[in-house]
Amino acid sequence: MNVGIAGSGQLGYMMILESRKLGISFNVIGQDLDGPASRIADRSYIYEDYKEFVDRSDVVTYEFEHVDGRVLDYAESEGKLKPGIFPVKLKRDRSLEKDFLHSKDLPVAEYKIAMSAVEALEIAENFGDCVIKSVSGGYDGKGQYFVKGGNVPSSIPDGKYVVERFIKFQYEASVIASRSLDGAIRMHKPSFNFNRKGILFYNAAPVSDNGMNDAVRRLLVELDYVGVLGVEFFIADGKTIINEFAPRVHNTGHHTLMGSSISQFEQHIRAICGYEIPDPVLYRPSGILNLIGVNPDRKTVEDILRLPETQFYWYGKNGIRRGRKAGHINVTAETVEEVHSKIKKLTEIVYGNAPDEFL
Amino acid sequence: MNVGIAGSGQLGYMMILESRKLGISFNVIGQDLDGPASRIADRSYIYEDYKEFVDRSDVVTYEFEHVDGRVLDYAESEGKLKPGIFPVKLKRDRSLEKDFLHSKDLPVAEYKIAMSAVEALEIAENFGDCVIKSVSGGYDGKGQYFVKGGNVPSSIPDGKYVVERFIKFQYEASVIASRSLDGAIRMHKPSFNFNRKGILFYNAAPVSDNGMNDAVRRLLVELDYVGVLGVEFFIADGKTIINEFAPRVHNTGHHTLMGSSISQFEQHIRAICGYEIPDPVLYRPSGILNLIGVNPDRKTVEDILRLPETQFYWYGKNGIRRGRKAGHINVTAETVEEVHSKIKKLTEIVYGNAPDEFL
Repeated sequence: MNVGIAGSGQLGYMMILESRKLGISFNVIGQDLDGPASRIADRSYIYEDYKEFVDRSDVVTYEFEHVDGRVLDYAESEGKLKPGIFPVKLKRDRSLEKDFLHSKDLPVAEYKIAMSAVEALEIAENFGDCVIKSVSGGYDGKGQYFVKGGNVPSSIPDGKYVVERFIKFQYEASVIASRSLDGAIRMHKPSFNFNRKGILFYNAAPVSDNGMNDAVRRLLVELDYVGVLGVEFFIADGKTIINEFAPRVHNTGHHTLMGSSISQFEQHIRAICGYEIPDPVLYRPSGILNLIGVNPDRKTVEDILRLPETQFYWYGKNGIRRGRKAGHINVTAETVEEVHSKIKKLTEIVYGNAPDEFL
Repeated sequence: MNVGIAGSGQLGYMMILESRKLGISFNVIGQDLDGPASRIADRSYIYEDYKEFVDRSDVVTYEFEHVDGRVLDYAESEGKLKPGIFPVKLKRDRSLEKDFLHSKDLPVAEYKIAMSAVEALEIAENFGDCVIKSVSGGYDGKGQYFVKGGNVPSSIPDGKYVVERFIKFQYEASVIASRSLDGAIRMHKPSFNFNRKGILFYNAAPVSDNGMNDAVRRLLVELDYVGVLGVEFFIADGKTIINEFAPRVHNTGHHTLMGSSISQFEQHIRAICGYEIPDPVLYRPSGILNLIGVNPDRKTVEDILRLPETQFYWYGKNGIRRGRKAGHINVTAETVEEVHSKIKKLTEIVYGNAPDEFL
């Protein structure tokens, strides 16, 4: 079987690492031939050659929703795109995602859509504490403006925005869910997520469900989804609010690479290839620390691997720069508390006392 | 870091699958460029180009002891071979292995060395129940003659043999052990192994130790070993006898790919690259069923993956033939008994009622 992956970053890279054992060949398409996934693919393509890429793949998936549209549109027209084009469309315009979730009665923060920067700032004035989010291209906190204590920015770039009332949440959490071709739904255990500057810094599983599973189940069905879906939540007193979803494997699911009976990456590939997807077993509490903007030297890697029950994932990207994800570390331990304390140690090993300098 | 693997079969394939995440590049050398490991290597070589292969690798290991000697000799002379050439020499002539183990007071079956077929048959006459083993190239039961009830073969091919008195064992077991560059020793949990026609058919871990760990620790030190070592035992009433060792990752360690905090493959690569090796945690009882001489169709793979907590490893070899290992299935479960019963189910799914027809 030939699986095509649109996008050549770390998510595709880990799909291949995890699923080649199934006897699958992987085609990867990206901007160049040098991405982490392209370098280990069976065949690599650049976006210009999207037709050949799709034609030579039995099924096409995407590791990222903001890849070249021609690939996805052609794969969809050939009936090969899984999950289909619909969730991508919702992600290309954040206002569509919000409206969709709202229309399906799924829990989202109070929001308004602004067709211009001026309108967005007006709404923000009225909302009080809120977040102004550009509708397009926003991930890892890009294109977002936080308004606190009436401190509305004097100007922001013009464009369409979603303005969301700020939720005073206790913590962020997420669910990695999967749905098979015949509609079976499986869930990895929810994780607690800690972000810095809008980027996932570390996470740990399991954490209590707080109604997340129910919401995700409904979302999977409403999207008629196939594959792995990552859904981020805010957990507030008595409320569980969807922040956003990602129609793909997700950074908060990397912990499933260690301590789980199946990783999110293999789960996704099994689902889109039409295999039954298993109920994931979390053998042991697990978590990750992201490696962002750092390039650990030999001694640092040695120190990381010296800690019991750690694994080191290096994506091999060309050029490490501030704020860019370059790898991650997996951790398991007997208790979640121990996972947290290991991650604390690892943070010191990797970032010293100043993680913010790398993010 | 560039790691060179001599031999291009499934063991090298799984070393790469498991360790690429460490940011390592892999060179593979084999008879052709088409072996399972060659196809996913960063650079692939044929044996004729052994000099370039070694020169472009920071460290060289072997996935099999019977690879082209020029590679190993040159890598050893360059100080790059890990584990070194010594354990290979012991494996090239089974009589040296036996003498070595015996001289170190490690528990082996009573044996005699025969310099010819005639001598071997004479010894067998006197020994009673015994096994006549060719000293060279013997693995997966090849070149072995079982003598039972005085039924000595009338002739065997001429050559050097080890004749071993037959041990009435309860079962076979093995230990996957590892030793780091600085001498730290780690052990995966021992497994129960079930062979058919001299080939591993399935296994399951953990099983009781019965003194195996002690013997393996001594062996690792006596060999001044670096990397993963597989040691097979016969467990008889009150006795634990070494059958043989393999100076490499081993088929009985494939279960560490699932349900363990680290696989034997990554453990080996970490050790030879000079990293600290962790104490492996067995999260949950685990086992494998080998896929020998079979080429499961889509429906069979679906049936395999439908069983909870299974993983399917397909090596992608060219040409499936009787007795040849083509893949394996990993299984975990809450208890070892459950692992055994899952393997029984999987055996029926894969082989029907007639496994022997494929072996």
